[in-house]
Amino acid sequence: MNSVSFPLSKRATGATSSVIREILKVTERPDVISFAGGLPSPEGFPHDQIKAAYDTVLTQQPKVALQYSPTEGYRPLREWIVSDFKTRGVDIGVDNVLIVSGSQQALDLIGKLFIDEGSKVVLESPSYLGAIQSFNQFAPTYATIPTDEQGLIPDGLTDEIAKDARFIYALPNFQNPTGRTLKLERRIALVKRCAALNLPLIEDDPYGELRFEGEALPGLYALSQQHGGTVIRMGSFSKVLAPGMRIGYIIAPEAIISKMVQLKQATDLHTSTITQMAVYETIKNGFLDTHLPQVRELYKRQCTYMLEALDEHFKGIDVQWTRPTGGMFIWLTFNEQVNTTELLPRAVEEQKVAYVPGQPFYPLAEKTITNHLRLSFVTVPEAKIRQGVAGLSQIFK
Amino acid sequence: MNSVSFPLSKRATGATSSVIREILKVTERPDVISFAGGLPSPEGFPHDQIKAAYDTVLTQQPKVALQYSPTEGYRPLREWIVSDFKTRGVDIGVDNVLIVSGSQQALDLIGKLFIDEGSKVVLESPSYLGAIQSFNQFAPTYATIPTDEQGLIPDGLTDEIAKDARFIYALPNFQNPTGRTLKLERRIALVKRCAALNLPLIEDDPYGELRFEGEALPGLYALSQQHGGTVIRMGSFSKVLAPGMRIGYIIAPEAIISKMVQLKQATDLHTSTITQMAVYETIKNGFLDTHLPQVRELYKRQCTYMLEALDEHFKGIDVQWTRPTGGMFIWLTFNEQVNTTELLPRAVEEQKVAYVPGQPFYPLAEKTITNHLRLSFVTVPEAKIRQGVAGLSQIFK
Repeated sequence: MNSVSFPLSKRATGATSSVIREILKVTERPDVISFAGGLPSPEGFPHDQIKAAYDTVLTQQPKVALQYSPTEGYRPLREWIVSDFKTRGVDIGVDNVLIVSGSQQALDLIGKLFIDEGSKVVLESPSYLGAIQSFNQFAPTYATIPTDEQGLIPDGLTDEIAKDARFIYALPNFQNPTGRTLKLERRIALVKRCAALNLPLIEDDPYGELRFEGEALPGLYALSQQHGGTVIRMGSFSKVLAPGMRIGYIIAPEAIISKMVQLKQATDLHTSTITQMAVYETIKNGFLDTHLPQVRELYKRQCTYMLEALDEHFKGIDVQWTRPTGGMFIWLTFNEQVNTTELLPRAVEEQKVAYVPGQPFYPLAEKTITNHLRLSFVTVPEAKIRQGVAGLSQIFK
Repeated sequence: MNSVSFPLSKRATGATSSVIREILKVTERPDVISFAGGLPSPEGFPHDQIKAAYDTVLTQQPKVALQYSPTEGYRPLREWIVSDFKTRGVDIGVDNVLIVSGSQQALDLIGKLFIDEGSKVVLESPSYLGAIQSFNQFAPTYATIPTDEQGLIPDGLTDEIAKDARFIYALPNFQNPTGRTLKLERRIALVKRCAALNLPLIEDDPYGELRFEGEALPGLYALSQQHGGTVIRMGSFSKVLAPGMRIGYIIAPEAIISKMVQLKQATDLHTSTITQMAVYETIKNGFLDTHLPQVRELYKRQCTYMLEALDEHFKGIDVQWTRPTGGMFIWLTFNEQVNTTELLPRAVEEQKVAYVPGQPFYPLAEKTITNHLRLSFVTVPEAKIRQGVAGLSQIFK
């Protein structure tokens, strides 16, 4: 069934179903407590507001909402993003903004824009699995820079690593998979270093608005306005509004946006008109100012439940974990003898608990690193978090 | 502004803004009568039904509608497509259906699935410009087979043309740009020939439901069930419901769908959940059975207005045009001295009328073919059709 009798492209021949995808299939079973998902909590979806927004759009502008529209995106939504960034002191214009069909499409367009077969791409180690999968479509080679508790280490971006690289891809806030946040000095150092190297810096920030503790740090795009260099920033409404709408955006210099518009036109013409209009209608009058604090409060509670459960049940186990101040994920590091990939089937079968093993987040030979796992704290209710973490601890004892 | 100081991929360096795109910009001016667009008529959008569908979905299943969902697509919509095809005698299962973000994304996924740099792709000559642009992203080489009044000529698919080709791409119904329909004997001959060659056949059918005259002919996918071979069929709700939603689908053998799912996951995770659900909610109870006859009636009237205007105003000009029995387009063929690309600026400036010149629809050296143009008859009201065609005739006299 899974073979064909005619030639496919190298990328299709090489593509294998993702580990996360296969895991998610197993964990759809209702008896499994899944910490594996990257899904935001549906408790945070403002469905009444979104329903009202669709109704308004389809009452007031049905012919616009249902028709083809410009590849760049719905102009009022792009303007909203411009003014939102102005309030954070970031100076952009509407021609710096492209609306995309979710952040994953931003990754696809970045791959299309930069990667020829064999081009070098620099990643944090570990990095977001969905980005690795997306870039893999264009057959790059990877180089990595190391990370620690404070995020990626800018000095790791050596001349050797940077040589002939097309870009570096980084998640500065509550990184997926580690939950770690890049500290300010390192942000500045990274932006300066990339500027000196003339190396485009991709800033992926799906979780920045989900900070539930401490002060927000300036983003890499904002810092590039002071320190130079080219930053391409990816943002998304998936975590602040709802992922099922599939609306994200790219902020970049005009010359980059203009190339990306051409690529997006060939890719899917444009993102759903009606969905863009509904997002704009939902948020245009400051809705997120009251909505986001509620989401943050929810995520903070969820994170606290999981950290408490880890403190209680993982006592005496040789393991450390991150204590995120936002986002969705906690990252566990066991001693090097532990293989979380091999233990996953046991966790699911014996304890009915699922997680994502750390291995696939490592793009390189580092794939031999097996002693990590990622837990999402956002979708499972409190009692199940405690029960699931207790079960998990049995596997690692 | 349009240059960057660091290397981009070859595809991005080569990408140029499309001719159609640039024309559409000019023709957004309200004083221009545009026959250039490929837009369906907003008069045919069933906005009340779609508004009610969104309301139902967001009232009954808000947490599903706003959450991430499987890459394959919303299962009830896939099942609807299966049963819709069953009513036409085409036997498919749900695993033969992938929902995509509009037909343009189907083209992107087909390119990703089949094309390595330099791979040969076979097109009709002329062929759909958006497909050429999409395939160009993956740097194929092209071979073409000739067409006449009855559509593509299957004997043109010689061993030499087919040798090492990855696929052939064809629009059998009311082709874009010519409006021509492939006749039955040729459909059968094409399917058999591709089967004998073991050459995948891509059937793009956005306009099939817009037949306003004569009997529907069996599709290539349907014929492959009798005559063998591998057909990948692209369909869309853009022309039967509304393009601003961006919902299309691919029907193919399971082994193909399964590879495409992997590619789509890396491309945009999945198509908007809420939009898929709203499409399903709109059509699930047979809505299209009453809606489509109205759209066909509208398009038939519009086509008649334009054919009448051509008969009246183009008398005495050395030109022929197609008389479509469905779809959106009429294709004009002048004598070989006429250059429609060069005349376009005069048509817009002097007569305030826009069309799409034929040149960009030719993928090859045939780009020297300059004596065609495409007119859309669907969006311009009757009086303006007459006025615009009269104006146009002045340019070609």
